Amino acid sequence: MTKIKYMLFAVLGAAMLAGGALAQEPAAAEAVEAVAEAAATTPAPDTAFIFNTLLFLIMGMVVMFMAAGFCMLEAGLVRSKNAATICLKNITLYAIATVMVWLVGYNLIYGNAATPGGYLGTLAFWKADDSAALDTGYSASSDWFFQMVFVATAASIVSGTIAERVRLWPFFIFTAILTGFIYPIQASWEWGGGWLDANYGFSDFAGSTLVHATGGWAALAAALALGPRRGKYGPNGQINVIRGSSLPLATLGVFILWLGWFGFNGGSQLALGSLDDAISVSNIFVNTNMAAATGVITVVVLCTFLKRKIDLSMALNGAIGGLVSITAEPLTPAIWQAALIGSVGGVIIFVVTPLLENLRIDDVVGAIPAHLFCGMWGTIIVPFSNSDATYLGQAVGIGANAVFVFVSSFVIWILLKMIVGIRASAEEEDKGLDDSEIGAPAWPDFSSKPHPLQPAE
Amino acid sequence: MTKIKYMLFAVLGAAMLAGGALAQEPAAAEAVEAVAEAAATTPAPDTAFIFNTLLFLIMGMVVMFMAAGFCMLEAGLVRSKNAATICLKNITLYAIATVMVWLVGYNLIYGNAATPGGYLGTLAFWKADDSAALDTGYSASSDWFFQMVFVATAASIVSGTIAERVRLWPFFIFTAILTGFIYPIQASWEWGGGWLDANYGFSDFAGSTLVHATGGWAALAAALALGPRRGKYGPNGQINVIRGSSLPLATLGVFILWLGWFGFNGGSQLALGSLDDAISVSNIFVNTNMAAATGVITVVVLCTFLKRKIDLSMALNGAIGGLVSITAEPLTPAIWQAALIGSVGGVIIFVVTPLLENLRIDDVVGAIPAHLFCGMWGTIIVPFSNSDATYLGQAVGIGANAVFVFVSSFVIWILLKMIVGIRASAEEEDKGLDDSEIGAPAWPDFSSKPHPLQPAE
Amino acid sequence: MTKIKYMLFAVLGAAMLAGGALAQEPAAAEAVEAVAEAAATTPAPDTAFIFNTLLFLIMGMVVMFMAAGFCMLEAGLVRSKNAATICLKNITLYAIATVMVWLVGYNLIYGNAATPGGYLGTLAFWKADDSAALDTGYSASSDWFFQMVFVATAASIVSGTIAERVRLWPFFIFTAILTGFIYPIQASWEWGGGWLDANYGFSDFAGSTLVHATGGWAALAAALALGPRRGKYGPNGQINVIRGSSLPLATLGVFILWLGWFGFNGGSQLALGSLDDAISVSNIFVNTNMAAATGVITVVVLCTFLKRKIDLSMALNGAIGGLVSITAEPLTPAIWQAALIGSVGGVIIFVVTPLLENLRIDDVVGAIPAHLFCGMWGTIIVPFSNSDATYLGQAVGIGANAVFVFVSSFVIWILLKMIVGIRASAEEEDKGLDDSEIGAPAWPDFSSKPHPLQPAE
Repeated sequence: MTKIKYMLFAVLGAAMLAGGALAQEPAAAEAVEAVAEAAATTPAPDTAFIFNTLLFLIMGMVVMFMAAGFCMLEAGLVRSKNAATICLKNITLYAIATVMVWLVGYNLIYGNAATPGGYLGTLAFWKADDSAALDTGYSASSDWFFQMVFVATAASIVSGTIAERVRLWPFFIFTAILTGFIYPIQASWEWGGGWLDANYGFSDFAGSTLVHATGGWAALAAALALGPRRGKYGPNGQINVIRGSSLPLATLGVFILWLGWFGFNGGSQLALGSLDDAISVSNIFVNTNMAAATGVITVVVLCTFLKRKIDLSMALNGAIGGLVSITAEPLTPAIWQAALIGSVGGVIIFVVTPLLENLRIDDVVGAIPAHLFCGMWGTIIVPFSNSDATYLGQAVGIGANAVFVFVSSFVIWILLKMIVGIRASAEEEDKGLDDSEIGAPAWPDFSSKPHPLQPAE
Repeated sequence: MTKIKYMLFAVLGAAMLAGGALAQEPAAAEAVEAVAEAAATTPAPDTAFIFNTLLFLIMGMVVMFMAAGFCMLEAGLVRSKNAATICLKNITLYAIATVMVWLVGYNLIYGNAATPGGYLGTLAFWKADDSAALDTGYSASSDWFFQMVFVATAASIVSGTIAERVRLWPFFIFTAILTGFIYPIQASWEWGGGWLDANYGFSDFAGSTLVHATGGWAALAAALALGPRRGKYGPNGQINVIRGSSLPLATLGVFILWLGWFGFNGGSQLALGSLDDAISVSNIFVNTNMAAATGVITVVVLCTFLKRKIDLSMALNGAIGGLVSITAEPLTPAIWQAALIGSVGGVIIFVVTPLLENLRIDDVVGAIPAHLFCGMWGTIIVPFSNSDATYLGQAVGIGANAVFVFVSSFVIWILLKMIVGIRASAEEEDKGLDDSEIGAPAWPDFSSKPHPLQPAE
Repeated sequence: MTKIKYMLFAVLGAAMLAGGALAQEPAAAEAVEAVAEAAATTPAPDTAFIFNTLLFLIMGMVVMFMAAGFCMLEAGLVRSKNAATICLKNITLYAIATVMVWLVGYNLIYGNAATPGGYLGTLAFWKADDSAALDTGYSASSDWFFQMVFVATAASIVSGTIAERVRLWPFFIFTAILTGFIYPIQASWEWGGGWLDANYGFSDFAGSTLVHATGGWAALAAALALGPRRGKYGPNGQINVIRGSSLPLATLGVFILWLGWFGFNGGSQLALGSLDDAISVSNIFVNTNMAAATGVITVVVLCTFLKRKIDLSMALNGAIGGLVSITAEPLTPAIWQAALIGSVGGVIIFVVTPLLENLRIDDVVGAIPAHLFCGMWGTIIVPFSNSDATYLGQAVGIGANAVFVFVSSFVIWILLKMIVGIRASAEEEDKGLDDSEIGAPAWPDFSSKPHPLQPAE
């Protein structure tokens, strides 16, 4: 309908020109037509600006809500005696990320745009500058908000792995360092236009490596520094199952994360102000959803055939594994490729989860398989669908991220261990951290006698 | 980039004026005025395209989140010994719907657009085609995503009714058939431009019948094939109350559904790219909210006067009943009409729920009154506010949907019953399906001794 | 506004053409360029209209979802024996607000726009009027929806404070009066262009006073009329701790509220149809998020140093306190000012919560410190960052709101107490209101023996 109107506009303009003295200049008439045509396929810069900004705001909101998703997932997968502590950790880590990304994080990532190929941004607190807003294409604050919630996501990953034994304040201090320095420095290498982007053509669309593997490596470092929960591993290689207190809340958490991931990947298109951007965001939605779906189905099928019973928390992690796997490249895969990438994510969950247990690494919520292993998988497979990336470049990015994040995180945790101590006492751990850290039980009306430990199959 | 283009526009315009000779043609001046006027009231096609696509994406996101709403509602209304199983069912059914709508569902609905009046679409997997995107008015993927989450909604309805006794895999197989074939075929009759649309002027704006009654009929067929839960009905016509494990989670679920319904009905306007569309979506929001509100209030008032105590789960279903009732036509009713339509939905919940119990049909979450009966009510009443519909046409649509969905669903369930068995053993049912299907309790820290059965009033 | 600009565009274009020989006038060419430039920085009125409407719809949706946030917060902070009742209260109050804002509330606020400086609007039910939609700049229904969810928010505040002892129907009646009359009348003084706006330059961007202090004063009046819960205060000045049944659900509630607040404050920009509006909404997001973050961190730090253990429910209220504090002016503060304003909100939570207990006022969820005290703080501090406001004007607004809302609420509660009785019997309260009001337990599968009372530190 409206298109016809614009066509009329073009024809009319041409006719008018033809009517006048300009008739002798057909080139001019064609030029007018071309301009009218362009006006019909590209929004004016101000309209594009509002669309781009709106994308950041809406998608940022649902990514912010992922903090609630992680919180419910983790509160559901810890024992009830530690559920209040994990809730406090999750809301406070989001608050810390907010402040740190303002104070140092944002400009450590993006503050060095003038000198590409560098190793970190500038050390300066962030301030909204919209003096050239129309040229930028979006409001500065909308961009800051969107970037900030990404940083918070990385920190949320850590809290789940090391639940039920880490003390609150050491975790908060690590969170401040992770969100203020570790995450921003490595993100600057790629998203800040640094060396990974400039020299290796590394490609990580929404952060399989830069966000999820970062959270995963930090979680692994913390798990190693802390050691497993008391009772998780018996003296003779025995592995005990420690059940989470509420699978319904854990499921709710994963649904919230799935929802948030539309914002996480869709918003990472970073623009909505043109036809192509709108189409891209839509394709990202479809691929993101598909990878999550095949992640779930793969775990359900594997459990059915290989374990006879279907482990709900593993199926939930199948969704997350699929989502993390597609995050490095949610745009270029055909749907069947997205389905395949997500399905392999599900396989990774199924295989790596027991493997970590055999290595006596205690990852309470299964964040390391989901975020670290699926993050690396998603990143290395980018060239499968995106010819701009190379397997070598991807490997370099994965490796650089691994070394930097794991080493720096491990050093920080060891320093914290030496200086302030990072682990609750055995007695505190047995009574539950809600008693020692919060002073109040999470579910006081219900018998909170923990389910007896059971050996794993 | 685009800014430069506009600068060119300006310069070109000035040049044209400088050309002069057009001044003698006042008709041309009027034409220019008309074009400017049109530009002031209708967005350019590209801008409209982005708005339309954005509507599908945002509204699709909140409809997707309805999967979490159904999950919490159902997890809260089953006994704790079956809560993990219902969680697994809900996340997996959404995953299955994703894959099936991609493989067959979408094109069974929409793949036959060239030959109106048909009985089904084409059998082909879906592939995004944006080659004529500007003419379509929205990105293909955004539309697919929005349609897919609708299909998942229908499947979510079934899972609640037959909870606590159906085995996982038969349910998954039925879900695949429902989302891949049953739903798409009947939806093609109307939304795919088939015979109901072409020959009977059937009108079902957002799917009171096509989505909700479809889910309801499938749920009824399944309930009949399965039979009631053990202990629900006593030997001498006695009806026992089986209490859900968490009314707060059930309430959360309904709030999420209420939120999602803004997307469900509002997004069904299918466009946001014009003044009229924006006004329509807004009116739909108001009517949708109003019908839900009067649904709740009606149940609360009826309970107060007729039962003295106010049944929370019935009040929650009052909201859903109001929402389903307004879904067939959320646009044309005046507010008082929406209030009335929703209020009758509340009455239906209050009347039909005990009626089903007297018929010894065991609907664990009350999905049949809410989705099937209110769905039919909402559909038949469309001509009350929309003169384009007729009561006859509506009745034909309701009837066709009923026969096709109920019969095909019942046949599938009976076949599944004969071939693989659909029901957990008595022992499994008594222990809870979480034990036999998942192998882990949903709330392991809390005493999960089920509340003793009580006779209903 | 922008429509006029486009009219000018048309007229100017025609005039220029009519002028013909204008080629000799370079000024005209410049004028054309300027108009084209303007078109590049301001969307056409129809596009702006859709953006504005979309802002109301999206932001209204997340504010609507705050009803779920309040419900989860309150259900988590009451004992399990009262959790179903609080759920019913929260969903029904939202329904009542919907109906009352339609019947009287909206026009009591906005129905008197022609005569500024007044004391109330007109008494008429609301009806969407889009006859001058393009001039208004948004669809009437989108605005109604956005205003309505604000009113519901105020009512949600009340329900938490007086939980566990108030009877359902007196609460519903009060809710109807609050949402239909008390809130609208005082809101008309400012947002309806009444005397506070016209004569005192009172400034309350998104309602620290008009929404949150209103809810807070009504809650205080109700708490005084009702008295504390049985067992809350011992005979010798002893204060007992009564623990909430689910801190994870309470945490979820606060995350939902935090999410909703982006809509609450961001949507209160009331427009998205220009570059400046998009930038403003973005800045509001950043400040809103920052104030919540510093509210949390402040409570966590204060608890650590002064109480050694970190009270989770107080930390959660720290987030709400920060959010309420920034609500009166989320646009003009620099980030550090937003951080400071939110931090003081955290201090208020930490200081006022025990203070109320010492005054033997029983506020079950801590809504009075968060919504009333932080609301007043946020309002009085507006001139700190916004030079259009004065401390005197702010004080007048706070005082007028206080007197009107508190007195009218208190009178209503006393009347209700005299006429129908507002409080459950001692026996009902001890057994829990779920038994007497709902007739069903909220968590029937779990031992619901309440945690024994403990003296507060």
